[in-house]
Amino acid sequence: MTEPRRDTNWWGWGDPMRRTELDATALGVLRERIGELEPWPLAARIEDFELPAARPLPRAAVDAVGAEAVFDSKEDRLRHARGSGYVDLARMRSGRLENAPDAVLVPADAAAVGRLIDACAAHGVAVVPFGGGTSVVGGVEPLRGPHEALISLDLTALREVVVDETSLTARLGAGLRGPEAEAALGAQGLTLGHFPQSFEYATIGGFAATRSAGQASSGYGRFDSLVSSVRLLAPAGNLRTLETPHTAAGPALRDLVIGSEGTLGVIPDVTVRVRPAPPQRRYEAWMAESFEAGREIARVLAQGPGLPTVIRVSDEEETVGSLALSGPRGAAGKAFGAYLKARRRAGGALMIVGYEGTEEALTRRRALTVRALRAGGAVYLGRAGGRSWEHGRYGGPYQRDLLMGMGAMVETLETSHTWTRLGELHRAVGAAIAGTLDGEGTPGLVFCHLSHAYADGASLYFTFISRARRGAELEQWTAVKRAASEAIVAGGATITHHHAVGRDHAPYMEAEVGETGLDVLRAVKERLDPTGIMNPGKLLP
Amino acid sequence: MTEPRRDTNWWGWGDPMRRTELDATALGVLRERIGELEPWPLAARIEDFELPAARPLPRAAVDAVGAEAVFDSKEDRLRHARGSGYVDLARMRSGRLENAPDAVLVPADAAAVGRLIDACAAHGVAVVPFGGGTSVVGGVEPLRGPHEALISLDLTALREVVVDETSLTARLGAGLRGPEAEAALGAQGLTLGHFPQSFEYATIGGFAATRSAGQASSGYGRFDSLVSSVRLLAPAGNLRTLETPHTAAGPALRDLVIGSEGTLGVIPDVTVRVRPAPPQRRYEAWMAESFEAGREIARVLAQGPGLPTVIRVSDEEETVGSLALSGPRGAAGKAFGAYLKARRRAGGALMIVGYEGTEEALTRRRALTVRALRAGGAVYLGRAGGRSWEHGRYGGPYQRDLLMGMGAMVETLETSHTWTRLGELHRAVGAAIAGTLDGEGTPGLVFCHLSHAYADGASLYFTFISRARRGAELEQWTAVKRAASEAIVAGGATITHHHAVGRDHAPYMEAEVGETGLDVLRAVKERLDPTGIMNPGKLLP
Repeated sequence: MTEPRRDTNWWGWGDPMRRTELDATALGVLRERIGELEPWPLAARIEDFELPAARPLPRAAVDAVGAEAVFDSKEDRLRHARGSGYVDLARMRSGRLENAPDAVLVPADAAAVGRLIDACAAHGVAVVPFGGGTSVVGGVEPLRGPHEALISLDLTALREVVVDETSLTARLGAGLRGPEAEAALGAQGLTLGHFPQSFEYATIGGFAATRSAGQASSGYGRFDSLVSSVRLLAPAGNLRTLETPHTAAGPALRDLVIGSEGTLGVIPDVTVRVRPAPPQRRYEAWMAESFEAGREIARVLAQGPGLPTVIRVSDEEETVGSLALSGPRGAAGKAFGAYLKARRRAGGALMIVGYEGTEEALTRRRALTVRALRAGGAVYLGRAGGRSWEHGRYGGPYQRDLLMGMGAMVETLETSHTWTRLGELHRAVGAAIAGTLDGEGTPGLVFCHLSHAYADGASLYFTFISRARRGAELEQWTAVKRAASEAIVAGGATITHHHAVGRDHAPYMEAEVGETGLDVLRAVKERLDPTGIMNPGKLLP
Repeated sequence: MTEPRRDTNWWGWGDPMRRTELDATALGVLRERIGELEPWPLAARIEDFELPAARPLPRAAVDAVGAEAVFDSKEDRLRHARGSGYVDLARMRSGRLENAPDAVLVPADAAAVGRLIDACAAHGVAVVPFGGGTSVVGGVEPLRGPHEALISLDLTALREVVVDETSLTARLGAGLRGPEAEAALGAQGLTLGHFPQSFEYATIGGFAATRSAGQASSGYGRFDSLVSSVRLLAPAGNLRTLETPHTAAGPALRDLVIGSEGTLGVIPDVTVRVRPAPPQRRYEAWMAESFEAGREIARVLAQGPGLPTVIRVSDEEETVGSLALSGPRGAAGKAFGAYLKARRRAGGALMIVGYEGTEEALTRRRALTVRALRAGGAVYLGRAGGRSWEHGRYGGPYQRDLLMGMGAMVETLETSHTWTRLGELHRAVGAAIAGTLDGEGTPGLVFCHLSHAYADGASLYFTFISRARRGAELEQWTAVKRAASEAIVAGGATITHHHAVGRDHAPYMEAEVGETGLDVLRAVKERLDPTGIMNPGKLLP
């Protein structure tokens, strides 16, 4: 029997023992830019938390997995009632949730998942597939729709790893967290190479269901490009795609399952392409003249000799903010500032560039990259900045918890567009966020970076921080999110490059795929999930 | 007004003025291996050809495009009545076709395509989208299904090229032939890099509709990976995907349209990623110890330092056959044979390896590739063999016409699988083909090569040549095709790596995608094409 995981911070992110802090310099900058904050404490402990009463489950659902695999304590229901977006976390601070699963069920294997889905379909029980609970777009919110009851289908027990060392593929159970998958592969000298910010807690099934992209996607590819084949257990039947490297046999069903966000069925496992673990890694920092100049370097690399494993370009605001919040301090900080001024790169755009591979491949790749960096006017800042990024690469969510506790709204959103349209999109979305924050009376910091580059374009990742409008936190968030989303849609960009759709982006799906596109997605949904029990209220408006 | 193209050989492949020949050595080998052939002449000229009577079109269909865009001469109907597979060509030799379009309509632009589809949907007229007519799986066979009339919707007029030089994308009209697209891109120093054997006559729309892969797909990527966005004009509405480099907004509708083979609607244009045209190209020949050793070299490259632009490994049979049919002759041939013997590579596996790019990139790529080739025991044969491959790379279909005229059955089929399963698949499919040919009393040559390599596996491409069983040509072909397809399915491989499904592979789609997969594809079809007018009888069984 496998229990649901209870090792994370129940009201926030990750390791409950990990502490993160801001020093006086950082606090000074924050105060200067967003004003005084009023602490935002948790309103309740687990035992006092208000959850809706659990409704009873049909016997068949319990029988499908066995009574020992059904968990309905307040803690388990609470832990499965949310993802990790600002809305979820703000609600957690309120001490009260309107929606929670009636129970958490942990099927022991794919066969039990299949039985459970069948039972839920037969008895009209809504099913929210649950991996790591790291969705930042409301992807696991327990919305029961027209159904009587709702369960959280926790995939924790599905953690098998089967490696084919000749073909370099691995079938990975949906419930494996990122580090678990990497550890199993690493024991055979292999890596998947998928490292999103949520890596430490997100799961393989979630990566597939949300079409995830990692920080090293320039080098290893997005998760969807790593998937060789996939299975789907749906109310109306099961799908599996062949484990062949490619097929031209019609439309790609694989790409219907990937990105389906639990609305069509459950992905019990995924077969992915793996590769030898890189013996060497090197991350370094550079300073471009401007965000535009940094973007241009990324474009030249993506369209020419190829990209390094990691490439990230912060805009000028994010560069200033990053240095203020976590840059070098004291004498080192002064020397760094003097260096930038001497090289005329004060006010520039910070770039993180990373290389992974054999010594030989790394050296070759670095030589090509450095040539483009220098030709584009970037100045080398050394490896300390790269190590600092590496050290903090999974730390964002901890910092968000800290800032929220201090009274801040902290949120991120992302999009992508062609190189031709990227500059204008950056200005428009940044202005929409900043303008709305101003309008709310909570002027804020608006950061942006490019972190996924392609031959034809790149992603833009925005972070904004402002004072939370206490008592109206969700209204404030909604206003900013809407303004940013409308600017994205107006620019012809995608509503999400890698956060997925979930609850938050569903209203923009018609702009994304058009009326006929929605019709097609609905047709697929109706065929696979005729009674609509799978993850209601997500993906489709 | 645009007329349908009439520049190709009406009964066979390509340029009607191009002649291809076999010398005495080649003829001797053929006779020795497959026996004496009885010439197979054409039974009729165009004017004597028997076609079913054309049924009248509804007024609305004619009005949608204008009367001047409707062509119903015997020649135009005949030219649009077939693709380029063995079945099609054998029927052409018979002087009689059971199916032909009632007319060929050539809409002037995408708007006219839309109007035509609407008119056909309203009046129950079947529509076969027609690009280059190069399908080798019956993809354009005029099967009217339950409908009264059938038109061939010729996309020749849709040949616009719109390049975005910053993002390196190009919107290409569906009716552009490969060389037309390359010429337009080449004028701006760019290339698409998609060179399937059908390149000279196949069209952009066809590449997208069939999920095509080119001979240089190792370097440039398959066509599906080059597509940035796509449009579909369907009876129930129009689809378009955003021109962004990537999106995580749900299932990928792009990958439903790609590979839809005209069964969902018409693809009027495709936006593709392009890149700088390579200033240098170098193709060379190597000889591996065996097919297995050559495959292993391809695997090492695909899983390690990366692939060259072109990699092709012939099995031992194909190597012997290629050298016999078009290898060096006379003194050069003797010297070549002696060289192979001295290097202990007589009886080995011929490899073609190609590099394209800047001088620097080519040199770098070649150094990595040569290292793997030598480590894998391959022996360098020089550039003459590479040039010979380059010279003949689009010549296969001409040679097939020649051999069919001499009385041979010549057909190709292909599949793909993981590296782990590739050796067994090669043996099983080869044995199925050879055994069935023997059983038909027409023992033949069975060649195979690997031509598309991936980190996790590769494609296998089989060619077989035997005496045609005159009077029972299609029965003979059906027996061999069925045996090969069943061996592929039994091996868990895909029924097609890049030829698509069409009419010939539709019976194997359930093995490919399962019952639920078929259900999903049917649901999409029913939503987009509720009256089933789009390319009946293809893709779905």
